[in-house]
Amino acid sequence: MKIGVLNSGGDCPGLNAVIHGIVGAADQLGFEVIGFRDGFEGLLPPASFTRLTPRDTIGILKLGGTILGTTNKGHFAAKVGKGSIAEVPADIVAQAKATMDQLEIGALIIVGGDGSLTTGLQLFRAGWPIIGVPKTIDNDLSATAITFGFDSAVSTVVDALDRLHTTAESHKRIMVLEVMGRHAGWIALWGGIAGGANIVLVPEMPFCFEKLVERIKQRELQGNHSTLVVVAEGAKLPAGDLVTLDANAGGEVRLGGIGDRVASTLQTLTGKETRSCTLGHLQRGGAPTALDRILGMRFGVMAVKLAAEGKFGRMVSYQSYHVDSVPIQDAVNQLRLVQPDSELVIAAKAVGICFGD
Amino acid sequence: MKIGVLNSGGDCPGLNAVIHGIVGAADQLGFEVIGFRDGFEGLLPPASFTRLTPRDTIGILKLGGTILGTTNKGHFAAKVGKGSIAEVPADIVAQAKATMDQLEIGALIIVGGDGSLTTGLQLFRAGWPIIGVPKTIDNDLSATAITFGFDSAVSTVVDALDRLHTTAESHKRIMVLEVMGRHAGWIALWGGIAGGANIVLVPEMPFCFEKLVERIKQRELQGNHSTLVVVAEGAKLPAGDLVTLDANAGGEVRLGGIGDRVASTLQTLTGKETRSCTLGHLQRGGAPTALDRILGMRFGVMAVKLAAEGKFGRMVSYQSYHVDSVPIQDAVNQLRLVQPDSELVIAAKAVGICFGD
Amino acid sequence: MKIGVLNSGGDCPGLNAVIHGIVGAADQLGFEVIGFRDGFEGLLPPASFTRLTPRDTIGILKLGGTILGTTNKGHFAAKVGKGSIAEVPADIVAQAKATMDQLEIGALIIVGGDGSLTTGLQLFRAGWPIIGVPKTIDNDLSATAITFGFDSAVSTVVDALDRLHTTAESHKRIMVLEVMGRHAGWIALWGGIAGGANIVLVPEMPFCFEKLVERIKQRELQGNHSTLVVVAEGAKLPAGDLVTLDANAGGEVRLGGIGDRVASTLQTLTGKETRSCTLGHLQRGGAPTALDRILGMRFGVMAVKLAAEGKFGRMVSYQSYHVDSVPIQDAVNQLRLVQPDSELVIAAKAVGICFGD
Amino acid sequence: MKIGVLNSGGDCPGLNAVIHGIVGAADQLGFEVIGFRDGFEGLLPPASFTRLTPRDTIGILKLGGTILGTTNKGHFAAKVGKGSIAEVPADIVAQAKATMDQLEIGALIIVGGDGSLTTGLQLFRAGWPIIGVPKTIDNDLSATAITFGFDSAVSTVVDALDRLHTTAESHKRIMVLEVMGRHAGWIALWGGIAGGANIVLVPEMPFCFEKLVERIKQRELQGNHSTLVVVAEGAKLPAGDLVTLDANAGGEVRLGGIGDRVASTLQTLTGKETRSCTLGHLQRGGAPTALDRILGMRFGVMAVKLAAEGKFGRMVSYQSYHVDSVPIQDAVNQLRLVQPDSELVIAAKAVGICFGD
Repeated sequence: MKIGVLNSGGDCPGLNAVIHGIVGAADQLGFEVIGFRDGFEGLLPPASFTRLTPRDTIGILKLGGTILGTTNKGHFAAKVGKGSIAEVPADIVAQAKATMDQLEIGALIIVGGDGSLTTGLQLFRAGWPIIGVPKTIDNDLSATAITFGFDSAVSTVVDALDRLHTTAESHKRIMVLEVMGRHAGWIALWGGIAGGANIVLVPEMPFCFEKLVERIKQRELQGNHSTLVVVAEGAKLPAGDLVTLDANAGGEVRLGGIGDRVASTLQTLTGKETRSCTLGHLQRGGAPTALDRILGMRFGVMAVKLAAEGKFGRMVSYQSYHVDSVPIQDAVNQLRLVQPDSELVIAAKAVGICFGD
Repeated sequence: MKIGVLNSGGDCPGLNAVIHGIVGAADQLGFEVIGFRDGFEGLLPPASFTRLTPRDTIGILKLGGTILGTTNKGHFAAKVGKGSIAEVPADIVAQAKATMDQLEIGALIIVGGDGSLTTGLQLFRAGWPIIGVPKTIDNDLSATAITFGFDSAVSTVVDALDRLHTTAESHKRIMVLEVMGRHAGWIALWGGIAGGANIVLVPEMPFCFEKLVERIKQRELQGNHSTLVVVAEGAKLPAGDLVTLDANAGGEVRLGGIGDRVASTLQTLTGKETRSCTLGHLQRGGAPTALDRILGMRFGVMAVKLAAEGKFGRMVSYQSYHVDSVPIQDAVNQLRLVQPDSELVIAAKAVGICFGD
Repeated sequence: MKIGVLNSGGDCPGLNAVIHGIVGAADQLGFEVIGFRDGFEGLLPPASFTRLTPRDTIGILKLGGTILGTTNKGHFAAKVGKGSIAEVPADIVAQAKATMDQLEIGALIIVGGDGSLTTGLQLFRAGWPIIGVPKTIDNDLSATAITFGFDSAVSTVVDALDRLHTTAESHKRIMVLEVMGRHAGWIALWGGIAGGANIVLVPEMPFCFEKLVERIKQRELQGNHSTLVVVAEGAKLPAGDLVTLDANAGGEVRLGGIGDRVASTLQTLTGKETRSCTLGHLQRGGAPTALDRILGMRFGVMAVKLAAEGKFGRMVSYQSYHVDSVPIQDAVNQLRLVQPDSELVIAAKAVGICFGD
Repeated sequence: MKIGVLNSGGDCPGLNAVIHGIVGAADQLGFEVIGFRDGFEGLLPPASFTRLTPRDTIGILKLGGTILGTTNKGHFAAKVGKGSIAEVPADIVAQAKATMDQLEIGALIIVGGDGSLTTGLQLFRAGWPIIGVPKTIDNDLSATAITFGFDSAVSTVVDALDRLHTTAESHKRIMVLEVMGRHAGWIALWGGIAGGANIVLVPEMPFCFEKLVERIKQRELQGNHSTLVVVAEGAKLPAGDLVTLDANAGGEVRLGGIGDRVASTLQTLTGKETRSCTLGHLQRGGAPTALDRILGMRFGVMAVKLAAEGKFGRMVSYQSYHVDSVPIQDAVNQLRLVQPDSELVIAAKAVGICFGD
């Protein structure tokens, strides 16, 4: 059998571990692996691909990014917004199918996020031998308990907070760190707890500035003159309060994303020197953590197992400490969000972390 | 209520996160925390302890070791061997109890390994208000799905393998890394997979040199002239084969632990330049990973919750992604070992990792 | 003798190493050390200070920030702009002097940047026993070959570039990283070379977008579809060209500092997906590198030596691989800038790095 | 012109940066680069080499080891002991020369240590167009102020000491770390200072156990119950004292190198729990530091410059903050040792570090 593999969507630490797992497992079973370059685009004529053997994957476990390349947009991913992915046009599907047939690909493993897996589902329904591997650095897919890349992103956040902590203490400042998470606040929550943040703002729990200011003042009274704030990209005020946020912006804090705006507002409201940082793409790069390497590798191995067994239309998943699989159609478009009354949030509150809710 | 806390046994990344969790949670509930120094020894007259407030735990999340100190041996830990802990003498218990009474300690949280928790069980049965928090860097306690410190130790192993990998490649050598794990091979298994090891030797799966040599020769044929080997301290040959191992030792490889002996034997049998490294205490130190900080913090929070609810004689435990608790008596002396037919071992074999079994 | 020490201005990795060196050396000589809190502010009544003994400095070598705290502004630092520091008002000096006299401080070590040392010079001229230790993370003081903190900042930049590199490669993007350096481009230059940047923009060498675009197109032709750009905060277009930069800003790239604007302009001009990151305060934090720890420690030791010898009005300096000292008046306000025809710039150009000049 | 390059001797962080510099600089000048595999061995028929273009060096700056491979022994390096390198046999030279001629190599850059450069000198005297680049992780070559790899090795030592520090404190132990340095103690000295070691033992300063024990007891009196010891491989007792060292060995400390023996002896003499670690090959691996990447790159650029100018028989060197060159014959066999009365040693003693001398 010939197994095709492609990465689609934003890059994420652990993608190379998945490739490593696929190539290693296929090699043991005597399968050939064809890696398509730059996501689905590699399927379009002139097809762009490379044969992958175990020698090609030496040393890639520790590399961020993907040796295959990936693409966010292109002819396949006509996104119409979160949760409403446009169908891939029939002519594009036909061209790609010709490549599949010509190369005699018996299984196509798609390592991608919600949008890419939705495309995968369309292709599966059109008869393609699709196997999905979930990729979401935000760890927000309900069909799998954990996804690779998340632990690495959290580690990057924690490393940044460790750095900001000494600066904040030395200058008695408020330091605000903006991290990824438009819809789900997992990175902010885990990173904030592990990095010793005092305030964590996540999309699932709209925050009031009043409560943040109250907490900062309370800290001053206890002798803590610095405060670390982690803000998820998608953090928001309760409906109707957005005006307050923008109106206070300005001064020495640079205008920009939510992090900058929260910093500016806190400086105005507390009178304390406040600085902000936005981690941005640094969260997607760097060597994957041990956990993400192992998870990625196991996902790759399971994908090959599904291919060998002809179990198409399924997505690899991690459940109860075991790698398993679920139908793709049950997995896409099902977000796992931070629950305000979950044990982790309650534990965070128990040690004094303020969510502003 | 006054809550006492002590660390007992070898140190482990995340101990300070547990303390952070205990102090933070106790503070929110209005409890006082007394930290005893150097394990159980701090209870003996003249008692050695310190009051812990949130200000005392600023910045400790990222520190290895424990701010309270710990001790492996002493008046309490009269170990008679793995699985047979001697009773603590009555006079020692009486002296410690006097300290407990004098300080009006309403709950004593013991953060310790199997031996220390066995001692805790004895004290609980004698009427002490004991709560246990499991500490085993080897992650080998069956009563909890995961323990803090393990992820950090694995990360240290992976970092070492990443370093050895380029050296091994450049010199076309066999590099052997000895890691912790006398009874359970989890650190070797996880570290080996994530670090790209080609051979992993664990106590649960006795190995034959013949199979290792065969694998190394096979790699040579495939053009891979270097091999990374991870050996758990407790790795062993099948019964009766130990002579082989020792007889071949010597030459340029320094005599020492199992790692050195495996290296020496492989050099003799393959004729390839072989070097070995023993990580030793480096695995216990360093900043804990994000995962270990969060797990430690959550364990601490749960320990305070158990104290508040008067649920003594229980040990904090992690099960199905939730922090919970179990009776200490059900937890001690129950090792969780690597199962040779488990999914993780099978996945490792699927990508070509050799266990020599 | 009693030696006073204070940190002034922005924090910088290695400040604690200086304190470690001062306290260690003073202890060996039988001197007492008084650490003033929050810069010069600690001298004003009610004086804020702490006695420092070797026990207080255990474990601080590896910590970023400063255990003494520092302040950028305040009653002493009435900055009027780079290179024109206002005199400290006489009443403030008198109040601080009273503290000095009351505590019988025989030498006051000021660890600070150009502005703080200018203040130190004023005080020395007024009869204070001042010793200066230079602190500039930008490494831009001509009176010393190297300053602590610079190597750590460069390491942070390199770590960020290592992360961005795999992302840039995977997505075939241009990635722009903005780093510190308003007047001197040393951090961008060293960080860019070590991190494998393809384009480095420094204040000392105004750049043309035309040349950058030409270089990016040339790389495309050679098969390199990603480009890493490092921009110092103070990088600039040749006089008159600023309009071009701003006019093209907008689109998907967030408006902000020079990094964001360069990214936006490059995206417009090349049509390639471009992303930007600003490191900001992350460059000041984190554990200092080995080099910075040693340099800081040596500076501290030399400062105590100068105090013991009564050599006031001098600043510690590193010259020809030796720690020495120079008169403060010869050191302040003398910037060391990147020379476009220096060996390092020529070497960078020799390996294909483009400066846009 | 065609430039050949080879790495010879033990690997060292920064070798790939040298290759990066050579390939980049050659490309700008229109030269071709041929990389020989596995040191001088690659010159012997059947010659083993690869053409190197800038595309082949993408991403190698951050990799330890060398993409060309290297060898410690082989047909060229008939070492007869430190400082007495045997001549390479005439037939071997002739075979290698044939490869040089056949490939029309106009300059051969040898990146190697003292032994390899001595071989290079022999070849230069026989008419080969040799250029040397010094490689010594020990930083012990008097002809250059600094060599790449040293800063990375020191960083590894510091990272290990940071890890051991918290363990030592938690357990009130003596921890001994053995590091590289058979003849010169630079790694132990720099690593020890930066890592906060209390005792540093280097080959240049024979030590007495009495003085170590005295220092440890003095620390106990000051309330410091843990002690960090760094021992260079070549550390030694004064003549005649070796018996003492060995006689006390044994007990719980594993027999082995000098580190283990020092640990064992200290445990016996002080009665304190003592543990030892040997860093070994971990010091050679890992991503090079920023400094080493830049230094390596600059060395590579200068080597190409020397080739372009036909300045053969010279070795690249770093002097007074500039990259320059010296005749190979003036460089080989000239060790730079730690001077017991140097400023750095005196500074270390000033902060209380004990050398046992």
